[in-house]
Amino acid sequence: MSRGSSWVEGTHDSAFGLDNLPYGLFSTVDAAPRLGARIGDHVLDLRAAADAGMLPPECAANSLNPLMAAGRERWSEVRSAIQSMLSDTSRQTRVEPMLAPLTAAELRLAFEVGDWVDFYASEQHAANVGKMFRPDAPPLLPNWRHMPVGYHGRSGTVVVSGTPIKRPAGQRHGDDGPVFGPSERLDIELELGFVVGPGTSLGEPVPIAHAGGHLFGVCVVNDWSARDIQAWEYQPLGPFLGKSFATSVSAWVTPLAALEPFRTEQPLQDPEPLPYLRSPGPWGFDIDLEIALTTAAMREAGSAPHLVATTNFRDMYWTADQQLAHLTANGASLRTGDLLGSGTVSGSGRRSYGSFLELSWNGTDPVPLPGGEVRTFLEDGDEVILTGRARRDGHLVGLGEVKGRIVA
Amino acid sequence: MSRGSSWVEGTHDSAFGLDNLPYGLFSTVDAAPRLGARIGDHVLDLRAAADAGMLPPECAANSLNPLMAAGRERWSEVRSAIQSMLSDTSRQTRVEPMLAPLTAAELRLAFEVGDWVDFYASEQHAANVGKMFRPDAPPLLPNWRHMPVGYHGRSGTVVVSGTPIKRPAGQRHGDDGPVFGPSERLDIELELGFVVGPGTSLGEPVPIAHAGGHLFGVCVVNDWSARDIQAWEYQPLGPFLGKSFATSVSAWVTPLAALEPFRTEQPLQDPEPLPYLRSPGPWGFDIDLEIALTTAAMREAGSAPHLVATTNFRDMYWTADQQLAHLTANGASLRTGDLLGSGTVSGSGRRSYGSFLELSWNGTDPVPLPGGEVRTFLEDGDEVILTGRARRDGHLVGLGEVKGRIVA
Repeated sequence: MSRGSSWVEGTHDSAFGLDNLPYGLFSTVDAAPRLGARIGDHVLDLRAAADAGMLPPECAANSLNPLMAAGRERWSEVRSAIQSMLSDTSRQTRVEPMLAPLTAAELRLAFEVGDWVDFYASEQHAANVGKMFRPDAPPLLPNWRHMPVGYHGRSGTVVVSGTPIKRPAGQRHGDDGPVFGPSERLDIELELGFVVGPGTSLGEPVPIAHAGGHLFGVCVVNDWSARDIQAWEYQPLGPFLGKSFATSVSAWVTPLAALEPFRTEQPLQDPEPLPYLRSPGPWGFDIDLEIALTTAAMREAGSAPHLVATTNFRDMYWTADQQLAHLTANGASLRTGDLLGSGTVSGSGRRSYGSFLELSWNGTDPVPLPGGEVRTFLEDGDEVILTGRARRDGHLVGLGEVKGRIVA
Repeated sequence: MSRGSSWVEGTHDSAFGLDNLPYGLFSTVDAAPRLGARIGDHVLDLRAAADAGMLPPECAANSLNPLMAAGRERWSEVRSAIQSMLSDTSRQTRVEPMLAPLTAAELRLAFEVGDWVDFYASEQHAANVGKMFRPDAPPLLPNWRHMPVGYHGRSGTVVVSGTPIKRPAGQRHGDDGPVFGPSERLDIELELGFVVGPGTSLGEPVPIAHAGGHLFGVCVVNDWSARDIQAWEYQPLGPFLGKSFATSVSAWVTPLAALEPFRTEQPLQDPEPLPYLRSPGPWGFDIDLEIALTTAAMREAGSAPHLVATTNFRDMYWTADQQLAHLTANGASLRTGDLLGSGTVSGSGRRSYGSFLELSWNGTDPVPLPGGEVRTFLEDGDEVILTGRARRDGHLVGLGEVKGRIVA
């Protein structure tokens, strides 16, 4: 589908034009939360459109779950209907009143999260962590190239972009036994999250060729991590309180349909995965990702956010269809709203890592910032902004940003 | 509160008398799922009672969550009202039609599970696992005596007692690299689960002295585990597919109020925990627990379930109030329906272990069964029944059983 043009002003060269149309949940001073689709700097009120008979009833819900549950055909139908509403000038008079300026919209968490599963799919990230924490062993553990390693996180603490992040307290290792207090190694993880559409029944694995039918869309994820809490607690059952205090997701969920032009081959997998993990089609996505930071001092000085790292999603070793097939291979059921995190997206160069743990190489090499500041881990007042943007063959699609400021 | 007597037949010496009154969700051929309280071999229809004005509106819901969310005062009020309905003979004529025989009730999952967190609180269990898997190291890892170690499980695959358990497939270690197929080391874990009542806001830890106000009741939990899948996958992020295929819980949730007579000192903790984990009151519970097994051959021979192990909950090192305080110490919020698993309950004698991993000592010492059969791990057709029962000073309270049969 090529990028048509919309009658909505300022959308011609926008990363939020007709080819994108991400979904979100928004409220305004005069109206309760309802679904919206972003077009340029406006939000189309999907409930109003559904009430006017222009969209099916799922669009009148107050979460994205009913639409996500409805499956691919419905997703296409709704997307086409929205594209037509926003491009057909003969409908402009009727549709225009359904637009709210983004500045007037308060964005909410767009979907009810079922289970939140976080993977570990970047080879560079897994190897970086291995080199730092197991310097005398091979950087990757023996299972890593055979399966998408993952774990369950706390779905009740998934929050929308903009939610302030209170610095977590917890136990950490001390010289004379463990101590309790605010984390001293507060970090981010730059990830993409794939959101599950139709659920499945217990005992019915999803064959990898069908995985796409269960994946609705993508959000940007900041998997906040307290490295000191995590290091002391994680043996033998994995990360727990070092991660569970908050996970921020972008308000906008970009449908996979909008990302089709950016689909690309994933990296070669060697050894070849077991049959249940052999992906039939390309599941790499060529999406640029960025980490930007504003400190309290920078805000005071009026400085713009500082670009700390840039990377691309296409090099992720394990792909979303493989993760979904693995997740269900044991018969585990899916629920609409399950969120599959890619794991930290780290590229091969030092300024392309997706966490401060890696960017500062475990705190040994501070990241320089404008105005002479440096960072190893996050300080109170720091605001982190993660964004994504895909550009290819004339197509341009922005992913929603995920932003969070650390408070004491 | 001493055990009064109920006009319901056969409840005088019952483990499900007036002092117990666990809650569940049931349906009958002629009526949709509704809340019930078990009395002897009957279920009191709480929706009917609420509709008749005898109970508050939370009791008319089709899950336990609204009542659990309402808090302690409401819990007491409802419990007293039910006790009065079932003991006051002047109300018998009005209340009797609200009773359904258990045999006519199909039991459902009583509550919507928020997050499912599984701990690892039995010292004997943690030490047994350590001895088997790290024979040359101290049995307990350095963090174990300092915090209730735990991890998040898959809440979407928590199922009610009676749900058939399909043997999970997965990757496991093989001599020439990993292989994929049905688990060959399918196991159980005998646990109690504490269910969260009122939720909390993000960033607000629950002080340990307030933990009790957030804990509504207790169910019996079978945390099914595929040991071969788990062993290959769990480094470094913890258990994942080895546990996520199903977790069975009893249909009946016993309110903590019913377990007060069995409250007892927990074991001495040495070293003394950090202040945020210092429990102000006794949080041990003197509850006998049992594992029974019926194999396909035993069923054919008409044999009764065979008692495989018996243990008691009172020796658990970490207690539910400590687990709840730890879980929220980093600011993680609670949701009504969050489920806190105790971890496998293992006693000090060989026949008091809470898993086949331990009972068969990692498969090296098979468990003898009637008719000459033996078991290391579970075979298809095996049915496992976990039950609990507390008896003390004339009080008798049964916990709901959790039952599950393995299917190929």
